[in-house]
Amino acid sequence: MSLEIERKFLVKSDAFKQQAVEQTRIVQAYLNSDKRRTVRVRIRGQQGFLTIKGQSSESGLSRYEWEKPISLSEAEQLLALCEPGAVDKVRYLVPVGQHMFEVDVFAGANQGLIVAEVELQSEQEAFTKPAWLGEEVTGQNRYYNSMLSQHPYTNW
Amino acid sequence: MSLEIERKFLVKSDAFKQQAVEQTRIVQAYLNSDKRRTVRVRIRGQQGFLTIKGQSSESGLSRYEWEKPISLSEAEQLLALCEPGAVDKVRYLVPVGQHMFEVDVFAGANQGLIVAEVELQSEQEAFTKPAWLGEEVTGQNRYYNSMLSQHPYTNW
Repeated sequence: MSLEIERKFLVKSDAFKQQAVEQTRIVQAYLNSDKRRTVRVRIRGQQGFLTIKGQSSESGLSRYEWEKPISLSEAEQLLALCEPGAVDKVRYLVPVGQHMFEVDVFAGANQGLIVAEVELQSEQEAFTKPAWLGEEVTGQNRYYNSMLSQHPYTNW
Repeated sequence: MSLEIERKFLVKSDAFKQQAVEQTRIVQAYLNSDKRRTVRVRIRGQQGFLTIKGQSSESGLSRYEWEKPISLSEAEQLLALCEPGAVDKVRYLVPVGQHMFEVDVFAGANQGLIVAEVELQSEQEAFTKPAWLGEEVTGQNRYYNSMLSQHPYTNW
């Protein structure tokens, strides 16, 4: 079991790409996109994952998360059962100060959307804000990947 | 990956209990009870399981199934996220001829319902029908455990 504490921001420019230390294609879809019990199938590079998340805390910052690695072929089979609306993105890992930002550049039906997340140890923890970081959107439902699957950015 | 081929029957009497070689309490609930992508959390004795099933074939006999054992504490945490309507039952394993029947005696909101299942290698495979076996209900949606979770037997 783990509690995920994350803050989420829009991204104002491509400048993060110069600082990125890794980039990986991610394709994911949902066996359940209900935010009270999200069940996600993800392929990240050549590795599959099954992830189950509970509802967010009232602040939108913490959320119960359970994750298990699964094989690529299991992930492909489970993706075939998922709700329509796969989310396709490239994730950049960008170190800033003491933290690692995950910057997701969306493709397909969510083309044009770029979102940065930083994971924290507590809801109060401070962190360095890079110049490319834009408006905070922590806890806004429409930026959940499970929502982007059903209501993609290009339809907003 | 596996394809599950099963036939399901009502049970007419308690006579199966004399032939049973094992009995185990099962408590299960659903992260998704949609039959196109059922996600089930089960505690069987002291062991947890996470099981994902796809839609049945047209005959109602075969169904894609993926299952992984998980710890008891993981299962308890995931049960807390599930849709309301846990299914509580005792499963008897009953050998008959060359096959093992699983006979589920339901409790709680499904009290009074007893269902037997036999797993086959092909949709045509023959098997011995014991005297306690009643009407066949293979493929009838309301006998799915995911349906019993939402629409329990005592409400029929």
